[in-house]
Amino acid sequence: LLTGADVLVRELAALDVTTCFANPGTSEVDLVRALDTLGSIRSCLALHENVVTGAADGYARITDHPAMALVHLGPGLANGIANLHNARRAHSPVVTVVGQHPTWHLAADSPLSSDIESLAGVVSCWVGQPTDVSDLGQAVHDAVAAARRPPKGVATLIVPMDVQRAEAAPHRTGCFAAAPNRPVAAEQIAAAIEALRKGAATILWLGRGALSAEGLVTAARIQAATDCRVFSESFPSRLERGGGLPAFPSVPYFPEHASVAIKGASAHVFVGMARPVYMFGGPNGSSSPVPANDQVVELADDAPHCVLEMLASALGPLPDVPHKAPEVRACSGSLDPESAGITVARLVPDGAVVVDESGTSGTGYQTASAASARHVRLGVTGGSIGMGLPVAIGAAVASPDRRVIALEADGSGMYTVQSLWTMARESLDITVVVLANRRYAILETEFARAGTEPIGALASSLIDLSNPTLDWVRLAEGHGVPATRVTTVEDLETALARSFADPGPALVEAVI
Amino acid sequence: LLTGADVLVRELAALDVTTCFANPGTSEVDLVRALDTLGSIRSCLALHENVVTGAADGYARITDHPAMALVHLGPGLANGIANLHNARRAHSPVVTVVGQHPTWHLAADSPLSSDIESLAGVVSCWVGQPTDVSDLGQAVHDAVAAARRPPKGVATLIVPMDVQRAEAAPHRTGCFAAAPNRPVAAEQIAAAIEALRKGAATILWLGRGALSAEGLVTAARIQAATDCRVFSESFPSRLERGGGLPAFPSVPYFPEHASVAIKGASAHVFVGMARPVYMFGGPNGSSSPVPANDQVVELADDAPHCVLEMLASALGPLPDVPHKAPEVRACSGSLDPESAGITVARLVPDGAVVVDESGTSGTGYQTASAASARHVRLGVTGGSIGMGLPVAIGAAVASPDRRVIALEADGSGMYTVQSLWTMARESLDITVVVLANRRYAILETEFARAGTEPIGALASSLIDLSNPTLDWVRLAEGHGVPATRVTTVEDLETALARSFADPGPALVEAVI
Repeated sequence: LLTGADVLVRELAALDVTTCFANPGTSEVDLVRALDTLGSIRSCLALHENVVTGAADGYARITDHPAMALVHLGPGLANGIANLHNARRAHSPVVTVVGQHPTWHLAADSPLSSDIESLAGVVSCWVGQPTDVSDLGQAVHDAVAAARRPPKGVATLIVPMDVQRAEAAPHRTGCFAAAPNRPVAAEQIAAAIEALRKGAATILWLGRGALSAEGLVTAARIQAATDCRVFSESFPSRLERGGGLPAFPSVPYFPEHASVAIKGASAHVFVGMARPVYMFGGPNGSSSPVPANDQVVELADDAPHCVLEMLASALGPLPDVPHKAPEVRACSGSLDPESAGITVARLVPDGAVVVDESGTSGTGYQTASAASARHVRLGVTGGSIGMGLPVAIGAAVASPDRRVIALEADGSGMYTVQSLWTMARESLDITVVVLANRRYAILETEFARAGTEPIGALASSLIDLSNPTLDWVRLAEGHGVPATRVTTVEDLETALARSFADPGPALVEAVI
Repeated sequence: LLTGADVLVRELAALDVTTCFANPGTSEVDLVRALDTLGSIRSCLALHENVVTGAADGYARITDHPAMALVHLGPGLANGIANLHNARRAHSPVVTVVGQHPTWHLAADSPLSSDIESLAGVVSCWVGQPTDVSDLGQAVHDAVAAARRPPKGVATLIVPMDVQRAEAAPHRTGCFAAAPNRPVAAEQIAAAIEALRKGAATILWLGRGALSAEGLVTAARIQAATDCRVFSESFPSRLERGGGLPAFPSVPYFPEHASVAIKGASAHVFVGMARPVYMFGGPNGSSSPVPANDQVVELADDAPHCVLEMLASALGPLPDVPHKAPEVRACSGSLDPESAGITVARLVPDGAVVVDESGTSGTGYQTASAASARHVRLGVTGGSIGMGLPVAIGAAVASPDRRVIALEADGSGMYTVQSLWTMARESLDITVVVLANRRYAILETEFARAGTEPIGALASSLIDLSNPTLDWVRLAEGHGVPATRVTTVEDLETALARSFADPGPALVEAVI
């Protein structure tokens, strides 16, 4: 007997969905049984749904292909929305599967009933809820297609329990038609070339695929040929880094610094990104550091590195640009945010993945990593913290041959601390470095920017994580992950070297 | 200079909102500053928003009055939705305050932008987003009024940063008109009396305020006079328990048991609740154990214990019913779910609050607590697990003179494990008892019910929490809470006695 649940997992497998991150409940029991029967989809249990969805995001950032994120009804989906928000902003393909009450039970408004479609709609590019088992196979197909269709995103499939359990006919899967790239018109390329020839008065902005190794190399050649300035987007989903690759600055986070950084520019060429937007708005009601009346050329395309190639080719044969890695200052002794980040950057193994949720403590790594061994950096895309540890799980599952380093701030890390258990359970090669400054430092800075210093006792207490001090060694050990605490550069080096040499996860609490 | 943020917190304080649970971000900095300036609203920091919202729910269940739950934009609100779902089902008054981007910045679609109103709408009885500072005071008033208006619920106030920061005129708060109770018609009372006189063929169902001490005592007198059967709702928000109070069974969770439990009934009188609904639906497409063609009298009222008084009075002068506490079997030696729960029930201090999220391990406490010292039980209302530890925080903040016992399953407890830090930080008198069976036992049962035993390796792994074993002692210590692990009844007794004697929180991992 084939059931709807069987059709669902078979169709996913037929569409090359090979991995499931899961926190199932009663309304997903049939789906779990179907996964069990099929046996070919690797399924990883997490203790919280935001670990599930963040792991699916991390998996997608490495493979460019969706995993299944299996969660329980409305509250389960709600628990995972913050990291689906980041996945949406990362344009990560994710297929979220949510169990639902039987169709005939919905009107009774059970205690666990809620408006799942409204919750899903906030983060999804596609939401479907088939109510007849004969529609289920096509719905699965549509969900995967929607997740994979450029610019890619989160597709959410809501599956009532009676639809999961109903007898079903085998679904014959169709092939995906390759999605055509949106073309860039020749006049657009010409306009961009004209702007780029203005040299330092023009900024070439790189986002998404333009931050691949090929994209970065091509951008450096364009820069050498035109003397334009180059910036990367502020919150890249995935950035190739180190190993002699060109490295470009991103625009500073705070508006007062951003406008200084791009001063003197009057033209902007965007590849793989749109006009940058301040996180919380800037001075005088401005939403972007790019003034409204500057010249703007947006080269929208689903293959941004190809657009860069088109620009380079239009500029004529361009020589290779030798890249000089920046000098990284030596450091030793007591750790601070700068020296901790530099130390991690210096020791990153070749081919590693660095998941960077270091927040205010991250400048050391972010600067020094231009001189690191070649690696991939995955960052916070949607501003919602708590993505670092889950994304590291997904990246490690997607690339078992690479060391994954999760560079975490302590405040961010606590949102999804349960991730540590899945790392231990799956023996993932993840090194978690917690930069423990024991405060929400970003809020301290925001108080200063708002001119409300000195702040009072209540505000101080709401940004302070030192009462009591979180003991990350015990937290890690409680989840089954070996851990150590370090306070010097030398001890951090030793701890990192040991973790890189040993299989499985480890956590290093770097007190800064 | 008075700002919108000042008006907001002053208006809340004027409406007797004295407590704030918070996980603020950049878009809430002005609100934090205003809380700081005003100084009269106690503000407790939590490391995750689901702790914030669950604490507000717990506070409301004890005080019947809203606390402020302060969270950060869409993803912050999303993180807190699961416990707002429970608060909604508990009819707990809660005022959720969410910062929002400046009004003029919304169109730019910043990385942190999302549809906050849609998220809030899923769990709220009222959602407001004032865009002019002159509307803010009234919006705060409306939010508190909506949260407090029977049947009470979650009101969500979304406050753009420019509205928070704008100069504002003082808002003169109005008084609340007492909300009139919805009256119960005399014919309804007469119909209920006629049904109750049928004796055992009629079930008197008690929910919400009918489960207060007065309600339970009156229900026992009605039962003695009519020989009717009495059931409590399955998922009461708040239940008075022990100390010689009458105790009534609730309908079993699984449909196959529920229909047996109420067999023989043909009439139903509902006080403080509507027709019971199965969590996930029952056999043959039934949504309720109460058959559709049974006689039903629904006595809707906002003061259910008064309705019981009306019924008692209509039945004539009724004598008091001496209550005989059930015998509780002695237990010793190795702990199991039954003996662990019985031990907790035997030692509950007089006047305690028990937050019961014991799930499948809870039958021992649930039965034996009828013979406990007098206490209040707060339970899972909306089926979303992860409420126990946060609700305990709110209950402890609301009643500093009472011991709070959080009876937790290990699976449930992990969803909001970060709660432990706030317990330590606020030195709350909370005893957390983790009933560690190291599995999602409910799913094991559901597999058996679905007839899919023996289950395969993958399904087994998705319900198993023993690989690696969560070490609750280290987890607690990592959050700053002293902890101990016990495996026998005697050691559990010792650990409970020590915790009840010591101020502040403690955690006991009871391995069952």
